Amino acid sequence: MQRPSGRALAQLRSVKITRNYTRHAEGSVLVEFGDTKVLCNASLSSEVPRFLRGQGSGWITAEYGMLPRSTGSRMPREAAKGKQSGRTVEIQRLIGRSLRASVDLKKLGENQITIDCDVIQADGGTRTAAITGACVALVDTLRHMQREKIISEDPLKNMVAAVSVGIYKGEPLLDLDYPEDSAADTDMNLVMAEDGGMIEVQGTAEGEPFSEKQFAQMLGLGKAGISELIGLQKRALEE
Amino acid sequence: MQRPSGRALAQLRSVKITRNYTRHAEGSVLVEFGDTKVLCNASLSSEVPRFLRGQGSGWITAEYGMLPRSTGSRMPREAAKGKQSGRTVEIQRLIGRSLRASVDLKKLGENQITIDCDVIQADGGTRTAAITGACVALVDTLRHMQREKIISEDPLKNMVAAVSVGIYKGEPLLDLDYPEDSAADTDMNLVMAEDGGMIEVQGTAEGEPFSEKQFAQMLGLGKAGISELIGLQKRALEE
Amino acid sequence: MQRPSGRALAQLRSVKITRNYTRHAEGSVLVEFGDTKVLCNASLSSEVPRFLRGQGSGWITAEYGMLPRSTGSRMPREAAKGKQSGRTVEIQRLIGRSLRASVDLKKLGENQITIDCDVIQADGGTRTAAITGACVALVDTLRHMQREKIISEDPLKNMVAAVSVGIYKGEPLLDLDYPEDSAADTDMNLVMAEDGGMIEVQGTAEGEPFSEKQFAQMLGLGKAGISELIGLQKRALEE
Amino acid sequence: MQRPSGRALAQLRSVKITRNYTRHAEGSVLVEFGDTKVLCNASLSSEVPRFLRGQGSGWITAEYGMLPRSTGSRMPREAAKGKQSGRTVEIQRLIGRSLRASVDLKKLGENQITIDCDVIQADGGTRTAAITGACVALVDTLRHMQREKIISEDPLKNMVAAVSVGIYKGEPLLDLDYPEDSAADTDMNLVMAEDGGMIEVQGTAEGEPFSEKQFAQMLGLGKAGISELIGLQKRALEE
Amino acid sequence: MQRPSGRALAQLRSVKITRNYTRHAEGSVLVEFGDTKVLCNASLSSEVPRFLRGQGSGWITAEYGMLPRSTGSRMPREAAKGKQSGRTVEIQRLIGRSLRASVDLKKLGENQITIDCDVIQADGGTRTAAITGACVALVDTLRHMQREKIISEDPLKNMVAAVSVGIYKGEPLLDLDYPEDSAADTDMNLVMAEDGGMIEVQGTAEGEPFSEKQFAQMLGLGKAGISELIGLQKRALEE
Amino acid sequence: MQRPSGRALAQLRSVKITRNYTRHAEGSVLVEFGDTKVLCNASLSSEVPRFLRGQGSGWITAEYGMLPRSTGSRMPREAAKGKQSGRTVEIQRLIGRSLRASVDLKKLGENQITIDCDVIQADGGTRTAAITGACVALVDTLRHMQREKIISEDPLKNMVAAVSVGIYKGEPLLDLDYPEDSAADTDMNLVMAEDGGMIEVQGTAEGEPFSEKQFAQMLGLGKAGISELIGLQKRALEE
Repeated sequence: MQRPSGRALAQLRSVKITRNYTRHAEGSVLVEFGDTKVLCNASLSSEVPRFLRGQGSGWITAEYGMLPRSTGSRMPREAAKGKQSGRTVEIQRLIGRSLRASVDLKKLGENQITIDCDVIQADGGTRTAAITGACVALVDTLRHMQREKIISEDPLKNMVAAVSVGIYKGEPLLDLDYPEDSAADTDMNLVMAEDGGMIEVQGTAEGEPFSEKQFAQMLGLGKAGISELIGLQKRALEE
Repeated sequence: MQRPSGRALAQLRSVKITRNYTRHAEGSVLVEFGDTKVLCNASLSSEVPRFLRGQGSGWITAEYGMLPRSTGSRMPREAAKGKQSGRTVEIQRLIGRSLRASVDLKKLGENQITIDCDVIQADGGTRTAAITGACVALVDTLRHMQREKIISEDPLKNMVAAVSVGIYKGEPLLDLDYPEDSAADTDMNLVMAEDGGMIEVQGTAEGEPFSEKQFAQMLGLGKAGISELIGLQKRALEE
Repeated sequence: MQRPSGRALAQLRSVKITRNYTRHAEGSVLVEFGDTKVLCNASLSSEVPRFLRGQGSGWITAEYGMLPRSTGSRMPREAAKGKQSGRTVEIQRLIGRSLRASVDLKKLGENQITIDCDVIQADGGTRTAAITGACVALVDTLRHMQREKIISEDPLKNMVAAVSVGIYKGEPLLDLDYPEDSAADTDMNLVMAEDGGMIEVQGTAEGEPFSEKQFAQMLGLGKAGISELIGLQKRALEE
Repeated sequence: MQRPSGRALAQLRSVKITRNYTRHAEGSVLVEFGDTKVLCNASLSSEVPRFLRGQGSGWITAEYGMLPRSTGSRMPREAAKGKQSGRTVEIQRLIGRSLRASVDLKKLGENQITIDCDVIQADGGTRTAAITGACVALVDTLRHMQREKIISEDPLKNMVAAVSVGIYKGEPLLDLDYPEDSAADTDMNLVMAEDGGMIEVQGTAEGEPFSEKQFAQMLGLGKAGISELIGLQKRALEE
Repeated sequence: MQRPSGRALAQLRSVKITRNYTRHAEGSVLVEFGDTKVLCNASLSSEVPRFLRGQGSGWITAEYGMLPRSTGSRMPREAAKGKQSGRTVEIQRLIGRSLRASVDLKKLGENQITIDCDVIQADGGTRTAAITGACVALVDTLRHMQREKIISEDPLKNMVAAVSVGIYKGEPLLDLDYPEDSAADTDMNLVMAEDGGMIEVQGTAEGEPFSEKQFAQMLGLGKAGISELIGLQKRALEE
Repeated sequence: MQRPSGRALAQLRSVKITRNYTRHAEGSVLVEFGDTKVLCNASLSSEVPRFLRGQGSGWITAEYGMLPRSTGSRMPREAAKGKQSGRTVEIQRLIGRSLRASVDLKKLGENQITIDCDVIQADGGTRTAAITGACVALVDTLRHMQREKIISEDPLKNMVAAVSVGIYKGEPLLDLDYPEDSAADTDMNLVMAEDGGMIEVQGTAEGEPFSEKQFAQMLGLGKAGISELIGLQKRALEE
């Protein structure tokens, strides 16, 4: 079988991670998975959510948005409609949870890091690209906090990265682009830590249910992809 | 190890499915998983969403809500706040997707079934109880449509049911109640079809990442639980 | 004349009051007036509205909602529309005012009781059923507060109950169900205290204006009905 | 007893009805009850609400608002808050219902009249002043429709007017101004038709419940006041 | 050339400034530019915006609204739509900025003056009439503050007034009414101080761009008009 | 005098115009004025606003947004707040008006072009950069429409560009960056056409009013800057 993009089944798109993409944010990363481009800006604040005040612990949260014409046809601007869509809310909650799993929140002190993931151009897999880029922006922010003596210890427990996998014509594919995603029977998003621990598994049968065997195949493919992505994150962080 | 509820690791709560619970809806089911009580009312309408108009195919969607005092402390009423929470949106999208996987939408004709899942009393696992009950309300609605000659063929492909599984003190537990859920390290919601096909897998590491082995254990536990739940759905539908 | 429901002109529907219907609320009452079923959950909080802070006096307020398919055809969910309807707002203000009239707010201390009245199934008269049930949930909450030594004196001045009356084909009817309400010329909601004092009188000519004589007839009918309802509340509270 | 305003118990404030107050509206009336000043502008439109389309019948509706500084201390602007208060909604529904009772909607044709009642200055009784003024604006609009041959027959069945009555220190008072209203035990708004028919009765015990005798006294006082107001409306319409 | 209104090119409409128009506000001015009538009510408060707290400086802000039927055809009520239009927001920001330029905010103390400009009847130039009237209401409020010993020094630096100018059939016109405004090629709003200083210049080419020469002509016309308006403001303030 | 940025008084920042910046939009331009970076994406649609339907004429509109961390400290996301700020609304209305002045809307046919201007990084002058970039994206869209035979004639009348000017320590400056803008007494935005015609002039005295002489100086400076910008737009369009 030939996958629509012509890539090998287990082949990631070309991934590019550019740090310091904008100048104001404590961490600013443009992450590109092929034609999918997401800008991840991390902002540090000393105001934590109400339920954490006075407890000496920090928080990490994320917001997600798509520029109206990041997609093939223009989507209405959420700020103009006055409402974030269900999909947006779902994605930003996923990004936030994933990043919190990478950090020891107690070591953050009473600080909050908000990571804005804004899609400049979309071609499938925006949420997994966002998590992968956001983790790098988060590390840059943690380094900033240490440099500025806001914290003394590194709160990072684990790098995290994410990738999508799917079943297309019965075969598992890694890192689906938009045409592949539209044609796939099953869509799974996988978030894993550097040490192989699983953080989020979200598999959805779009049409037919999937079997346990297919599930295991997808898991295997995703694991390998994430390990490759974590290598790319680390290389970017060494530059 | 003793689980907080005193149940065996692989033991469901006492499950009760009451059909025809209210009188107006085409399908009306009160589902109880222990102290979690969700009312699932299915409404039939001949208006499908815009993107389906004129295509001869139907749609199934769901809405979810919690009565303000279904929980230990009162939650603000979403209608009064003017906004559904991110959690509510996430859950109702999950219920809708799960139910659509159980039905051949083409055989529905241009009809929409909306399933309102309202939590009367919450004690953990409201989304999985909701899916399990909603599927019964859906079947009652499909029977109504056949009785009323709105459709001639049964669109049901598969019963679906859902259950939560988690890791507590390193051990996998089935069907967590609220105290168990609060204490668990990992929370997984599983939606499966009658034939064992997987429809949704959503696993989240609350604290520590989970291993593949733990994941496989949870999957096994969930599968057995869902098979038991589908038996209970069928028995209820025979009455 | 035969009324549509077949009841005698001055006959209430079968009324049922079930206490402790759910387990979390300080007072939880399911009230049924025939096929109208309303769940009234009372929640105690130590936060009073801003205008009362520091004044040693308490507050009672109510919120009202209908489950989307509590009615013959599905109503849009107010939480999803992001707005409570004018009718909802009108009803919850009426319930709140009526309950405040039954209690000495000074004796409540700086505590607020919020009573959520959610309509599980509707067949006319949901607001009068709600008031009647909410008063019982309120009493249970006041008893709880005394048991828990939050207050030392009973703040209850008077039980209150409510009923609808109407003019149908020129005759006054008590406690209209939905088909009767739709056909009536005049709709009046009456809230009265145990001692016969009037708390709210809301009469509306749907079509033709009504005469003072009709008004007096409705009042008489309502007064008798409320006295019967207060007997039923008391019996329920003795169980 | 001396009432706070110094008026006799059964004495209306000085009432002034100015027609053609602004120039664009089909009917434009400034109504003054003492220091309470409400501008009532009626707008004619050929678009009726959806539930009436194609049925040959018309509709009358009302909207109500207070200028932010019509009151002693500035109230937040509802347009800026993005929400009408419960009180606003309650009042505009009352005004709409009252006016619809005065007209044969079938004779309106498929036309809608919207009456905007905006409070320029408030001193108690804004809703009853609004109804009284709106009825005059409505008649001017009906005359306009007949002049313009939009309708051939006069749809007016009855003039309607409204007044407040209350119990103050045990005595019934007519047409309460703001200081009287704040001090009263009971507040009742009465809407009646020219022929003495009752359209709306809304009595609320602010503190103590009221007795049937008091209720009858208030009714008597209100009836006389409304009859006087209808005389003033008619005189204004003859000018 | 004859301008549509028959006025001379440099002729203002008949301008009328009525102080103490309503009784509650600290400053209350009805300003009329011909058929354009705007009620400007100033409210004093000791609560300043968050960014000014504790800094000893005051603030002036404005809100703007049009009564729904102030215009030829009824506009939807912004409070009912739940949203102020872009035009409304633009105008109220302009009024606020203009008034702040007239006052030394440090001399206000930590006090805020909110000026509500509500259009009773519109015939073009509502924003310039609003600024002109609001400045008089502001001065009345500053006098009130001095009388009440809230401040000891007069914070007023300069009276401000505003006028519109436009190009119609190639000729510059002063103070356009609605029919002129609709027909004009260019619309310019000018806000100036008593001493001739410019505060706001907003020129917009509706159709064709305008030349620098036309711009200079408009400026000249506007300057003269504003000087005349400031004379009228002063005369009103002497009464 | 030395301006804060070290530039000469009449010197623009380094301006860069990159076409085809993203791949989905009919016109996609990244415009950079120094550190201010705005992405301008033009979307073509055959749906025009309601007031233009069936009239054979087209429409151009714009929307504006800032990424939350495009600025020095993070601004709340407007989509999450559910409301666009007054500043946003003001700016997007200005961009839309400016672009409409550059095109013969009748020659557009019944088509709408929406230009989304999203600020990736802000350093003052985002609205003027947006207009300058949006005009290039607009031209690319008009070329696309001609290539695709959607229109036969070029609707472009004039290129438009915009620049800010200000008074700083008494001297006029061109193209203010953020530190200059914060320190300036007067801020003026100028939109002009290729032929020197003026489209928008918006001058605001931040602190002290400005004189006519200063106004003329700013105008002169702005005119030269815009002529330079139009040269840069044309060069970009030739590539």
